[in-house]
Amino acid sequence: MSFRSDNASGVAPQIMAALMRVNQGYAGSYGGDASMDRVRGLIRDLFEAPEAAVYLVATGTAANALSLAVYAQPWTSVLAHETAHINIDECGAPEFYTAGARLALIGGAHGRITPEGLMQALGKIAQGDVHAVQRGMLSLTNVNERGTVYGAADTAALTAIARSHGMPTHLDGARLANALAATGTSPAEMTWKAGIDILSFGGTKNGCMGVEAVVLFDPEKAWEFELRRKRAGHLFSKHRYLSAQMEAYLTDDLWLSLATHANAMADRLATGLAAIAPVSLQHPVEANMLFPTWPEGALAVEAARLVTSWSTSEAEVDAFLATLR
Amino acid sequence: MSFRSDNASGVAPQIMAALMRVNQGYAGSYGGDASMDRVRGLIRDLFEAPEAAVYLVATGTAANALSLAVYAQPWTSVLAHETAHINIDECGAPEFYTAGARLALIGGAHGRITPEGLMQALGKIAQGDVHAVQRGMLSLTNVNERGTVYGAADTAALTAIARSHGMPTHLDGARLANALAATGTSPAEMTWKAGIDILSFGGTKNGCMGVEAVVLFDPEKAWEFELRRKRAGHLFSKHRYLSAQMEAYLTDDLWLSLATHANAMADRLATGLAAIAPVSLQHPVEANMLFPTWPEGALAVEAARLVTSWSTSEAEVDAFLATLR
Amino acid sequence: MSFRSDNASGVAPQIMAALMRVNQGYAGSYGGDASMDRVRGLIRDLFEAPEAAVYLVATGTAANALSLAVYAQPWTSVLAHETAHINIDECGAPEFYTAGARLALIGGAHGRITPEGLMQALGKIAQGDVHAVQRGMLSLTNVNERGTVYGAADTAALTAIARSHGMPTHLDGARLANALAATGTSPAEMTWKAGIDILSFGGTKNGCMGVEAVVLFDPEKAWEFELRRKRAGHLFSKHRYLSAQMEAYLTDDLWLSLATHANAMADRLATGLAAIAPVSLQHPVEANMLFPTWPEGALAVEAARLVTSWSTSEAEVDAFLATLR
Amino acid sequence: MSFRSDNASGVAPQIMAALMRVNQGYAGSYGGDASMDRVRGLIRDLFEAPEAAVYLVATGTAANALSLAVYAQPWTSVLAHETAHINIDECGAPEFYTAGARLALIGGAHGRITPEGLMQALGKIAQGDVHAVQRGMLSLTNVNERGTVYGAADTAALTAIARSHGMPTHLDGARLANALAATGTSPAEMTWKAGIDILSFGGTKNGCMGVEAVVLFDPEKAWEFELRRKRAGHLFSKHRYLSAQMEAYLTDDLWLSLATHANAMADRLATGLAAIAPVSLQHPVEANMLFPTWPEGALAVEAARLVTSWSTSEAEVDAFLATLR
Repeated sequence: MSFRSDNASGVAPQIMAALMRVNQGYAGSYGGDASMDRVRGLIRDLFEAPEAAVYLVATGTAANALSLAVYAQPWTSVLAHETAHINIDECGAPEFYTAGARLALIGGAHGRITPEGLMQALGKIAQGDVHAVQRGMLSLTNVNERGTVYGAADTAALTAIARSHGMPTHLDGARLANALAATGTSPAEMTWKAGIDILSFGGTKNGCMGVEAVVLFDPEKAWEFELRRKRAGHLFSKHRYLSAQMEAYLTDDLWLSLATHANAMADRLATGLAAIAPVSLQHPVEANMLFPTWPEGALAVEAARLVTSWSTSEAEVDAFLATLR
Repeated sequence: MSFRSDNASGVAPQIMAALMRVNQGYAGSYGGDASMDRVRGLIRDLFEAPEAAVYLVATGTAANALSLAVYAQPWTSVLAHETAHINIDECGAPEFYTAGARLALIGGAHGRITPEGLMQALGKIAQGDVHAVQRGMLSLTNVNERGTVYGAADTAALTAIARSHGMPTHLDGARLANALAATGTSPAEMTWKAGIDILSFGGTKNGCMGVEAVVLFDPEKAWEFELRRKRAGHLFSKHRYLSAQMEAYLTDDLWLSLATHANAMADRLATGLAAIAPVSLQHPVEANMLFPTWPEGALAVEAARLVTSWSTSEAEVDAFLATLR
Repeated sequence: MSFRSDNASGVAPQIMAALMRVNQGYAGSYGGDASMDRVRGLIRDLFEAPEAAVYLVATGTAANALSLAVYAQPWTSVLAHETAHINIDECGAPEFYTAGARLALIGGAHGRITPEGLMQALGKIAQGDVHAVQRGMLSLTNVNERGTVYGAADTAALTAIARSHGMPTHLDGARLANALAATGTSPAEMTWKAGIDILSFGGTKNGCMGVEAVVLFDPEKAWEFELRRKRAGHLFSKHRYLSAQMEAYLTDDLWLSLATHANAMADRLATGLAAIAPVSLQHPVEANMLFPTWPEGALAVEAARLVTSWSTSEAEVDAFLATLR
Repeated sequence: MSFRSDNASGVAPQIMAALMRVNQGYAGSYGGDASMDRVRGLIRDLFEAPEAAVYLVATGTAANALSLAVYAQPWTSVLAHETAHINIDECGAPEFYTAGARLALIGGAHGRITPEGLMQALGKIAQGDVHAVQRGMLSLTNVNERGTVYGAADTAALTAIARSHGMPTHLDGARLANALAATGTSPAEMTWKAGIDILSFGGTKNGCMGVEAVVLFDPEKAWEFELRRKRAGHLFSKHRYLSAQMEAYLTDDLWLSLATHANAMADRLATGLAAIAPVSLQHPVEANMLFPTWPEGALAVEAARLVTSWSTSEAEVDAFLATLR
């Protein structure tokens, strides 16, 4: 039992089975495998984006940092929420990959950027003044780092502001599956139709071993992305093992059923916690993360953040709640 | 059947089995898994290096570029053979990771740097002149990119020159297993006892799915390496799947038996080719690569380079030879 | 008449005369000129730092960014006041020169970092956590960007905190002459005796044409600094013209008398403004900058910031005040 | 007397006079000075390029490295002669400014790239292969580092090849004045009409104190250039002192008469050396540099390279020759 992170979970059986299946004979390396052709088609179908360029990498930090690098020039700002993974959890990967772009951080309750917050941050950038770091791009996270979800309209409102200021938008979708499961919104509505230009679509936290898809809805920067990926050591020689994970993940809506389950377990956990008087939740539980405030002097508790995953069982939730009580 | 690259081969059954085994329950992420503790111990034992710092990444380019980055300052040269992977096959990863160090290339027959070649290259560096890119480090490759092997004494002769010029030495050991199998030299004799400071010890080409160990024989730069790895997006959240590959690879000398087999298949192939009059070999076959010169107007042949792997069968070799005849 | 910036002023006659004098015959290039030998001695004497390494560059941004680059690793934070020149006015030069270090900004009234503010900023850095950008260095500015001055004890209190957290300290002294003139503190007391490790000592804003001295009180990084300076294109071939400026600036305490005059003019201006009822000053006037709040609907006024310089005359101050009244 | 470098010479009296003249009152900083407006017009007239963007920096390394940075992506090659200043004399500035582009070096007699040499270098670049560093740009030097000159037709032949391979061309014109003086070709014919996209037009070596103009014949990258210049610390606050130098240099063809004189002195020196039996010249003397081969056991001689400048007098040449005899 672990509620520390969805990273502590294993790999879903369907994904493991796919890895076994693909492990037959010889295959083209570096993305030249037949499975990758299918992945490309599956992603384009899922996102209703027949022109999109699709690439796989093995970590979320790689997906994010490479995505920023193709859009943010070194002398620009990447606007993001102060809790964003790219700010807190990547040891400066954005700066490394962009050759020195700067994060311009935005506050906002429950991990959310609001249009007002974004406008205020834009107001601090002395655009057109050669002494100042210029506007670069907007990076959103959905599910965000406080476990709340941007609806398609929320996203569209923010990307519209970005666009009107000449900025493209990246979506860190390490947990996008959970956001889609939570809202029932279609992948297209939640991304490019809401103004997203480049997407990290996570698999790792949701039952894969290590695979994230980067989707460039405008393929103009596709070749640049490929060169940056290779140059960063993120192009896999035995690429079929990335493809196979993603193919299985996209087959029969596995991504959706795994995320739906994780969300349901968070819901069950939230309901249980609500019945324990002195525990309160700092943020609404909208996907698979909870941020409880424990009473002082409480018995040992796991963490300030609880995360459920595809592998969390009802029994684990109930056992955890029983321990707390 | 494929002789294009050892990257076209699949994953050895022992490695797949280990991945299945490790896929149970929850595990510490980002290297905090129990399997990584065992890997650390196994590597230290294998290399007789109890103080060594050991890290895993998933690609050879990452292993090489991160290794260079901890030793080569941006204003220095990395001396390497002109055929080196870091020069030809990494799309400028060394420059990216080192923030601009320059490759100083050295010729030499059969992919080998000679002491004379190294001295000549050093002679071109205007050390101490502020206008010039300075000496940085030496990078060797063993098995090198023309399929020949440096013996421990060869390596020691080169690293001694490097050391006497203030330069540490990196070993790109993507195929080190094959070099060790070919020579019967011990891992310690072939590396740190021969003056190597930092090693990329490859698993991917020799039956793993995607894992390379980086071994810092002097652990002084260990923390810097960890930060650089994270910052580059090469620290895996579900790290246990890297650990499990490497643990299985190191168990019961699997690495050695896989490489011994690959070398034997290359030998069989070389013997077979020798019997085909108009085919000649450009370089001695010392490990698992062959570089044939095909007669003009020959029937379709696979490539200028033939590579055998852990999965190459005698039947495949014989069938290939039969096709040629 | 101009109070927009001390950059709008010309070059003091003593500096121009020195440029004429040095323009005779041939001289060693790239710092090999005899005048640079004298500058080195003069700086060491002035700062009572016989071991210091001393270099000249032509812009403040170069001086600052190169100084940061020798101490801040790419995966670390540079702690600085949110108004700092390195944050607001250098278009990301710190990120460029350090290969991606991140600014960690600190608020504080009147442009000043307080010990509490510094401790709070340090508390936000998850030192030792590989996912987080680590502690790097502290950068102070004196005179700071709101025109107030750190005394030697103020500086020492901040650098002591930095040191106890393993961080060296840079001083952006583009206007250090004004701070020294304002306080009467000795250059040594205000810098290395107060814990400063590397100093940008400005000449340009205080009557030179374009020269800043970088002083490394610990010369260990001197050669690295030289290589970084060259690599950045900031090593001048006809270096004697930088040396001559700095030599004249240091002769007969010219730096001090020019700064003393500029400060006196600011004082005169402040006194005059105080007599104009609806104008108030946002920050104490401690050196040569004033930040007036003009009444709404006021006649055209020059700017939100007024700066006096070596060339500001009493007549100019009085004429400006007369216009306002 | 010095023939070591044109950097050892002082500043021409017309330039010094301009610096004195401009040192009056207040002026706009950071390029907002009236003199810069005139410089822009003068350069556009001289090069018959009314749309060109024109910027000033103080060193040749800055001019070159910034020029490369706007055209060479980090994952591309900059093709240049192996003797080029950007290779030998800038301590890796190209790699620093371009965030890691690689120099692809070309041999060729007398410091010259030939069309054949360029084609051969292009042949080594595995364009379109994601593993390889890609084509970036061509950088020529005229006068080159062996003292020979590319005529307009030579340049056009090379830039045509570059263009047909999708590459723009930079011209390092640190000594372009000498090349123009030597050939009588017009500045336009020698640059953009011959296919040059971005030019470093040197002043420093030819009688200025420290100023180089960068001319972007296609202004599309002008704003990027400005941001890169600022970010690198090469935007001068008291910019009028750069402008004044360049304005004087461009007035009454001063640049041409200074270079013509330098070339004439080289010619006189070459003629004199020819009369000294055992001295031979390694390269044709086409501008202001000579590369003599001194007889073994000769009396002390100055250097392997002799450079004349605007300030070299006939008397100095004759005295030097007398010493040799």
